[in-house]
Amino acid sequence: MILSQTERTTIEPKITLVGAGPGDPDLLTLKGVKALKTADVVLYDALVNEALLNYAPANAIKVYVGKRSDDESFSQDLVNKLMIDYALNYGHVVRLKSGDPFVFARGYEEIDVAESYSIPTEIVPGVSSALGVPGLQKIPMVYSTLSESFWVVTGTNAKGAISPDLYVAAKSNATIVVLMGIEKIKEIAAIFKAEGKTELPVAVIENGSSTQENVVVGIVDTIEELIEEKQISSPALLIFGQVVSLHPQFNVIKDFYATLVEEGY
Amino acid sequence: MILSQTERTTIEPKITLVGAGPGDPDLLTLKGVKALKTADVVLYDALVNEALLNYAPANAIKVYVGKRSDDESFSQDLVNKLMIDYALNYGHVVRLKSGDPFVFARGYEEIDVAESYSIPTEIVPGVSSALGVPGLQKIPMVYSTLSESFWVVTGTNAKGAISPDLYVAAKSNATIVVLMGIEKIKEIAAIFKAEGKTELPVAVIENGSSTQENVVVGIVDTIEELIEEKQISSPALLIFGQVVSLHPQFNVIKDFYATLVEEGY
Repeated sequence: MILSQTERTTIEPKITLVGAGPGDPDLLTLKGVKALKTADVVLYDALVNEALLNYAPANAIKVYVGKRSDDESFSQDLVNKLMIDYALNYGHVVRLKSGDPFVFARGYEEIDVAESYSIPTEIVPGVSSALGVPGLQKIPMVYSTLSESFWVVTGTNAKGAISPDLYVAAKSNATIVVLMGIEKIKEIAAIFKAEGKTELPVAVIENGSSTQENVVVGIVDTIEELIEEKQISSPALLIFGQVVSLHPQFNVIKDFYATLVEEGY
Repeated sequence: MILSQTERTTIEPKITLVGAGPGDPDLLTLKGVKALKTADVVLYDALVNEALLNYAPANAIKVYVGKRSDDESFSQDLVNKLMIDYALNYGHVVRLKSGDPFVFARGYEEIDVAESYSIPTEIVPGVSSALGVPGLQKIPMVYSTLSESFWVVTGTNAKGAISPDLYVAAKSNATIVVLMGIEKIKEIAAIFKAEGKTELPVAVIENGSSTQENVVVGIVDTIEELIEEKQISSPALLIFGQVVSLHPQFNVIKDFYATLVEEGY
């Protein structure tokens, strides 16, 4: 009894937000592994590879907290409440998030709640899917004269809508990465078409960096069809920009157009 | 003699581009460690933490290839040549780059050269400084109503100039991260001033994620002075956007302005 009392008083609440990377468990950082090794509790999202839980001690509590923080079944309020309760009662909580904690992952909301309870927080950045997934397909964010910047936009903001920023992005020369946009591909393609960018190269990558990865490469005009044909669905990201023309699959498209021109179309 | 001949014929050239992350050696990924462990040669940039070289075998050749690929002393052509020569003569070359290989790091140029020699290539994405460094300061890329997207732009493009994209970015609501821009802070601040964004929050982070990290937080109107006062220099990144107002140092600025208003200025 006295022992348990002693244990209780030595609890040091702490919350570490760890970015798990895009899916491949080897894309976790060494710092992420170290955080997991000292975890008393791990709260993890659905897109996190469960193999990573093995880095946590066997007796650590592992709690699945839903598909994504925007999933109705696990509201952000509930995740926050669990996080605080576990930290106060068990000590070190690792909040394991897919990608990077601050790229559309509501990491700041969680930091903010923790600080309101005076619980110390730490951030372990992760490989963001927005950059890492195109990178694994050897699509660079910027390249020579093709692009000097990249813009990452959400297809599903807090209101469930495409971010108004995408309308501005579509006018720019930046490489544009759209996260959580696959289900709105028709509307998103229309935004680029309205800017006359019907032949802008587009790549769609489903389950990036995992063994179930699927890639489709096309142009704005054909991407909707291709997605339907290949049955690509969430989670997937969209990349719009001339840098996509560097992908080997794009040569097929270039050859096809060259043939059309040759044949007088 | 015969043995050395045999060794020569079993060389399997391979080039792996590894993102080392922003500076803290623990921000390397597990996949990066695995690549280094099988390296015959490591070609590394100046911003890479040399502690990472210890993951490579003791007998691996470690070659420093300059401050940055845009450094005159090690031209991209020379780096390419070294990379190919080492791969053909020694086998597995790990090209260790700071941040992510495809974020202003000329990774694609190197992949392209390798493929022209039919040398197999692999990418190991890294934590990009553009996202990871602000993250370690608990500055999120996006947050609630403050920002729904982020745009990463170079302050020094292939022509040595500020990317024209920054003029468009300054008009947008995106969080804007400028890499390699610290030496042009006067011109860059002027771009935002021209859009009337004199009070937009700005953070400057020098040597992000390292033990020599320095942070300055201000607004567009004062950032130049602050950088001079605190003697911040390269390598540093700039973050423009309302998300910077979430940084604890920004409260000091808010209090200062509130006092001015109270005192009737």
